[in-house]
Amino acid sequence: MTAQPEAPTIALVYSVESKRQEQYARAGFAGRVGWGERPALLVIDMARAWVDPTERLGSDLSGVLRSIQAILSVARDVRLPIFFTTMAYDSPLEIGSVVARKLGHLEEMKRGSDRVSLVPELGRLPHEPLIEKPRASAFFGTHLLDMLISERVDTVIVTGCSTSGCIRGTCESAFNYNYHVLVPREAVGDRNPEAHAANLFDIDARYADVISVAETLEHLRRFTPAVTP
Amino acid sequence: MTAQPEAPTIALVYSVESKRQEQYARAGFAGRVGWGERPALLVIDMARAWVDPTERLGSDLSGVLRSIQAILSVARDVRLPIFFTTMAYDSPLEIGSVVARKLGHLEEMKRGSDRVSLVPELGRLPHEPLIEKPRASAFFGTHLLDMLISERVDTVIVTGCSTSGCIRGTCESAFNYNYHVLVPREAVGDRNPEAHAANLFDIDARYADVISVAETLEHLRRFTPAVTP
Amino acid sequence: MTAQPEAPTIALVYSVESKRQEQYARAGFAGRVGWGERPALLVIDMARAWVDPTERLGSDLSGVLRSIQAILSVARDVRLPIFFTTMAYDSPLEIGSVVARKLGHLEEMKRGSDRVSLVPELGRLPHEPLIEKPRASAFFGTHLLDMLISERVDTVIVTGCSTSGCIRGTCESAFNYNYHVLVPREAVGDRNPEAHAANLFDIDARYADVISVAETLEHLRRFTPAVTP
Amino acid sequence: MTAQPEAPTIALVYSVESKRQEQYARAGFAGRVGWGERPALLVIDMARAWVDPTERLGSDLSGVLRSIQAILSVARDVRLPIFFTTMAYDSPLEIGSVVARKLGHLEEMKRGSDRVSLVPELGRLPHEPLIEKPRASAFFGTHLLDMLISERVDTVIVTGCSTSGCIRGTCESAFNYNYHVLVPREAVGDRNPEAHAANLFDIDARYADVISVAETLEHLRRFTPAVTP
Repeated sequence: MTAQPEAPTIALVYSVESKRQEQYARAGFAGRVGWGERPALLVIDMARAWVDPTERLGSDLSGVLRSIQAILSVARDVRLPIFFTTMAYDSPLEIGSVVARKLGHLEEMKRGSDRVSLVPELGRLPHEPLIEKPRASAFFGTHLLDMLISERVDTVIVTGCSTSGCIRGTCESAFNYNYHVLVPREAVGDRNPEAHAANLFDIDARYADVISVAETLEHLRRFTPAVTP
Repeated sequence: MTAQPEAPTIALVYSVESKRQEQYARAGFAGRVGWGERPALLVIDMARAWVDPTERLGSDLSGVLRSIQAILSVARDVRLPIFFTTMAYDSPLEIGSVVARKLGHLEEMKRGSDRVSLVPELGRLPHEPLIEKPRASAFFGTHLLDMLISERVDTVIVTGCSTSGCIRGTCESAFNYNYHVLVPREAVGDRNPEAHAANLFDIDARYADVISVAETLEHLRRFTPAVTP
Repeated sequence: MTAQPEAPTIALVYSVESKRQEQYARAGFAGRVGWGERPALLVIDMARAWVDPTERLGSDLSGVLRSIQAILSVARDVRLPIFFTTMAYDSPLEIGSVVARKLGHLEEMKRGSDRVSLVPELGRLPHEPLIEKPRASAFFGTHLLDMLISERVDTVIVTGCSTSGCIRGTCESAFNYNYHVLVPREAVGDRNPEAHAANLFDIDARYADVISVAETLEHLRRFTPAVTP
Repeated sequence: MTAQPEAPTIALVYSVESKRQEQYARAGFAGRVGWGERPALLVIDMARAWVDPTERLGSDLSGVLRSIQAILSVARDVRLPIFFTTMAYDSPLEIGSVVARKLGHLEEMKRGSDRVSLVPELGRLPHEPLIEKPRASAFFGTHLLDMLISERVDTVIVTGCSTSGCIRGTCESAFNYNYHVLVPREAVGDRNPEAHAANLFDIDARYADVISVAETLEHLRRFTPAVTP
């Protein structure tokens, strides 16, 4: 994500943001939720279609990928449940009439193609589910929710892309169900830097605590997995 | 919504937006979906808590209210199904442990209080359901969806507030189910003008066609209600 | 529920059942799930419409009511989350076109009427949510699920009526989400004794452990509430 | 399904049933819903695990299969949307902790194995989605619902197995959303003849119109597909 040309906009957005943060705090938004006791890690849509800058949907997410690799490593050490997602369809009917018109790129997301495969740097293990989600939110039209309940998860760490679509949608869904939702800022990305900034602001105000990757790693390293019921 | 002080930001956001719109079009976003054959009208959260500027959550939504009144009038003439929402709770358990921490204002949204009552200017009729929704999206934890299916609706017009929360959440849900979603731009509002602009951009790119109130009224006036099956 | 006239049928059903239980065990059904660590109690539809035998939907559920009172008393002592349900509608649109045709009695279930009020013997307390559910399952079109997640519940005790409708539907939904589901046999009832027996058989094979009220009370009396996170 | 040994039970169940049907009609159950305008066909779990009598879960469903083939043939002629389901998992986590204990047979349902493959007699075509459903209802944890909405379906024909599990669960879900639900009696089956009979009774009383295959074929042959919007 090369944000240089739009840097002035972002700076301005952030200066306006500080005024807004006071307004939101007065209005009763943006409370801190913090960590629960049983976190799970979601890695959203880190497949070639999004991560390869030569792809139609792609952008340079190499920094995001490195952050996710760091979190994955600790998450595996402390045995968090880990879920990956991608988007894939077999037929236009699976995409849906309306969805196909708004999001023309979905017709290229063929089930089983390279484009929808996770990037190998993630090193997904066989017991880590790969969920083919049909929409932005990892909860819509999938059975992620019952797996989280099965594992007695109460906290969801959301990483991957894109901040303004699948990350926000997934955060909103998880929050709706009363999960603690944590977004490590450097572990989420978007092809559009303004949308990234604006959506992180909304996510933090409404759905999740946006924190640093460092804070995420520090918390997880101290984590002792609960005995599975 | 007094947008003057932030006008430069918005102007800048929009100039960046035009570049972005090309980027999004190339990436296969922001297709036009248009109208289906059986629209319904949703009026989101036009209750005192949001519409009264002296309220903690409130802002000046008088222009939004006038737009909604104009749409309501035509929608009733042509007998669209019309649904209103508000947010209301009886107990902290109903809000939920996580949700109550992030959104402190919800504890004041007592079921049956003036604060959560629709503003009388809407003139809700007894057969127009009032849905108490527990979250941003009007679809979450409610039975709006089965009512839309019951009425063989294929198109949802989303109006009310706030653009960056309940409007966007409701648009995303409706789109997920393959409803045509239309957002009349002047009939939605937000206490935060940047969040309003940024979210209308995302909504139009990802979930709904953002159109004018004039276009909405013109389309509805030509609408002949289908014979109910 | 006066089961005498049909007792021969039930006896026969049960004698066939023992053969069937072997068949089901071989096929890999009817495993024991047991209790989790954080139970909640659901009391389904113990309102006048179902509990008053002079009502169209009613039958003699006095024994069921006594069993529920016994469970409620212990559940309150050990501070379980307790949820009550009823069914109520303001308009035909809320019932829905198809549902109203199949279930003609629903048009009499007016929101706010005596018919849909819980029987006073339950002594519902203000912090115990009353959920107006539009369908058989207490999870459909309501926000029960997010409240269970909020309370970190992992086990749901299902009581009330009717076994062949709302009890079974609620058990199936809770099981789908990986909740431990327990049905105290004498605390659920049905106007139709065969349907009661046949559905308890299916429920035990597929969705929940059917146990005795005595076992339920014994387990709950030993229960120490976990510290809420 | 060789029902001979239990025939007396079934006869008795049916004689009791006729008394019960009056009781149910008085109570306002079992109304006729009939056909809507845009039907879809669901073929539930006609995979080797259920259809091969030598399999643990299997029984002789050859008559059911022939009925489904007849319906499929007409449904393809008149271009109904057709959906197939099976059940398949990659890992114990996908099954879920509670579900795996109750339904021990699920651990053998490996994604990609012969056991979970549809029987070839169905001749599934590439544009007819195959949905891997994790639970009894074809709607739970899948995105069937948005596909039905996409196709403007208002009527669901439910066929396959097992009557007392996946058929009933799917009928209840579809009914909850106000779909017209039709169950062609000879096109659904169950390893347990009593459960089959008892559940068809409940399904007809509460969720769907149980009709004959002949009536289904006759209706579909007269059907002219609506122009897709």
